[in-house]
Amino acid sequence: MDVNRVLHMNGGEGEASYASNSSLQRAVITMVKPILEETILDLVSDEAFLASKVLCIADLGCSSGPNSLSVISHIVDTITTTCHKQHRQPPEFQVLLNDLPGNDFNTVIKSLPSFYDKLKRGNINHGRSCFVAAMPGSFHHRLFPRKSIHFIHSSYSLQYLSQVPKGLVSKEGMQLNKGNTYIASTTPQVVSRAYYEQFKHDFYSFLHSRSEEVIKGGRAVLTLIGRRTDDPSRDENCVPWKMITLALKDIAEEGHIEEAQIDSFNFPCYAPSAVEVQDIILLQGSFSLTRLEGFEIGWDSNMTTGNTSFDTLMRARYISKYVRAISEPMLSSHFGALVMDALFRRHIERVAELLNKEEPKFNSLVITLIRKVNIIYTSVTVFNSEEILQAISL
Amino acid sequence: MDVNRVLHMNGGEGEASYASNSSLQRAVITMVKPILEETILDLVSDEAFLASKVLCIADLGCSSGPNSLSVISHIVDTITTTCHKQHRQPPEFQVLLNDLPGNDFNTVIKSLPSFYDKLKRGNINHGRSCFVAAMPGSFHHRLFPRKSIHFIHSSYSLQYLSQVPKGLVSKEGMQLNKGNTYIASTTPQVVSRAYYEQFKHDFYSFLHSRSEEVIKGGRAVLTLIGRRTDDPSRDENCVPWKMITLALKDIAEEGHIEEAQIDSFNFPCYAPSAVEVQDIILLQGSFSLTRLEGFEIGWDSNMTTGNTSFDTLMRARYISKYVRAISEPMLSSHFGALVMDALFRRHIERVAELLNKEEPKFNSLVITLIRKVNIIYTSVTVFNSEEILQAISL
Repeated sequence: MDVNRVLHMNGGEGEASYASNSSLQRAVITMVKPILEETILDLVSDEAFLASKVLCIADLGCSSGPNSLSVISHIVDTITTTCHKQHRQPPEFQVLLNDLPGNDFNTVIKSLPSFYDKLKRGNINHGRSCFVAAMPGSFHHRLFPRKSIHFIHSSYSLQYLSQVPKGLVSKEGMQLNKGNTYIASTTPQVVSRAYYEQFKHDFYSFLHSRSEEVIKGGRAVLTLIGRRTDDPSRDENCVPWKMITLALKDIAEEGHIEEAQIDSFNFPCYAPSAVEVQDIILLQGSFSLTRLEGFEIGWDSNMTTGNTSFDTLMRARYISKYVRAISEPMLSSHFGALVMDALFRRHIERVAELLNKEEPKFNSLVITLIRKVNIIYTSVTVFNSEEILQAISL
Repeated sequence: MDVNRVLHMNGGEGEASYASNSSLQRAVITMVKPILEETILDLVSDEAFLASKVLCIADLGCSSGPNSLSVISHIVDTITTTCHKQHRQPPEFQVLLNDLPGNDFNTVIKSLPSFYDKLKRGNINHGRSCFVAAMPGSFHHRLFPRKSIHFIHSSYSLQYLSQVPKGLVSKEGMQLNKGNTYIASTTPQVVSRAYYEQFKHDFYSFLHSRSEEVIKGGRAVLTLIGRRTDDPSRDENCVPWKMITLALKDIAEEGHIEEAQIDSFNFPCYAPSAVEVQDIILLQGSFSLTRLEGFEIGWDSNMTTGNTSFDTLMRARYISKYVRAISEPMLSSHFGALVMDALFRRHIERVAELLNKEEPKFNSLVITLIRKVNIIYTSVTVFNSEEILQAISL
């Protein structure tokens, strides 16, 4: 799978688009808002930033929906309001929205005039002190010039890998993760290990690249899918992919695809544990880990509006639509666009079955980092496993 | 006409796209190359830039074809080669490609991986010392943070206005430029004047915005359609629009559109004279005008490949295709998408008729500017009319 080409959300603003099916991700952003605000206020009160006339903010994995600009709007509002309260001139903002080149940037760009109008109504220097650019590229590599970024935001993107892990095929050419599309209960340990190694490599590269770009004292707020269990094959975060696997098996039985096609398909993502994330941050060494918290969110979170209640099928449809918006380009490139409708019809049924039995949830991690001023390894904040588990159980 | 919405080249990479029909604009860029190189080398040898670790380059009016990245590639190559020759570490490059939000940025962005691969083959720090972002917005307003830009490039974009000039309708609601779509021989002087005033306002705003963004000593190379005559209604640059007017009248006669629709349509562009451009630069006052040259280019320039010769109809088709790529979104928003095929069939015929009589040419201006270190009005370079005319006649 050419991840750089096929890893992108469904484009446009139509019914199947990510733009129209990203309210779960909006709910995640809302949950992280207090942490985002705290980090931003912390950044603004930092000596190093008091003199900055331009504040450079990057959102990594911005995708094509409205969520990215809503985060940016909140950051800009928070900083501007704080500066006004302190009778300081707010800085100008250079905002860089990043995603892979296959992302539908046009949809984000077309929404910029209304974004600027909103800032203007908020009287933030007539909306023209904020300059939003699209910065295409892989965040596993360098994206920005050296020492140019003050603040990094990323939500629900870092769980994606730069490639499907190597080592999922034996020397004899046998698929080692047969019958699965991600780590599952029948996944051999060598496969789970390969997934972890790929995540370790990618997250290390991410931190290393950012360490060159973020100025000393710069901050990052990173939210990603992350598991609660030590064993990656026993985590709740495996269930979403399992639902797709089951639906794929259904359409294989119906003759739409071959079983062997499922065996050779593996999603390029990984839900790390808090300890794994912390270890990689320590190993890379350029950032102080100032916060690491876990939280959970129901699959149909943000669906309820007012007092309306939804039946199981409606909930399953809602879930299946956003899963499709996220995964269709990847699935379609492997199984073909023609079987997508059949696949997601079955997927709705599989999700509905699950909803009748349980209330599935995503486990997530939120991390805040500071780019170290001087890299003194002894000053690294270390959370012990107990602290992390306490945080996660909140 | 909502210029911000409808002024964009035809998107995508299909047969009617600007990307597939921009070889005339490529020819213009090639003609300006020696001036671009000279300006770049001048910039790099400037004391102020020797210490710069990041060089920030903006291309204003980048559109969606391959031309913009080919200019960027040339700039990056020139600077990197010069630095290597002088045993200096080349800077990192932050490149900002600007156009209106309606531009098809996705097509440019999708070509970035091959752009980076090319830089990599040229061994420019593995292609990752150059970071290309898309910066949507109107160049008649602020686009970038203060004092952030070292070099501005713009080719065949500055002739576009921010709006159709006001004052083209009388107090009684009569269309004053009846039967024309741009300044023509039957255009009343009040209309030509309104066009000039709009250009003056827009070009002044352009310079004013750039004066805040370009660091002192920063350079600009600007190429635009510009006329040779004093009287704007007698210039060769009116002819391309006249061909569209004739084709519109043809399809009005055929009943596809109403004559009145033509009366109320006016292209939002203006071909200034060298003297007009110079006057506005002097008036705005932030930039020293270091060069102002005129040049001409045949309508079917860059069509000939090798020894192949083309007949009149083939030449007319080539011309009509790029005129369509440029003007279709504007025309289509006013006359409707359904009549575009009929219009451009007639347009080919009108262009062919013209080619049988003459060899039409575009007149253009190329300007180089330096952002003044100290604004001392007496130090402004002034070209007298004779010098400009000499330059233009080259």
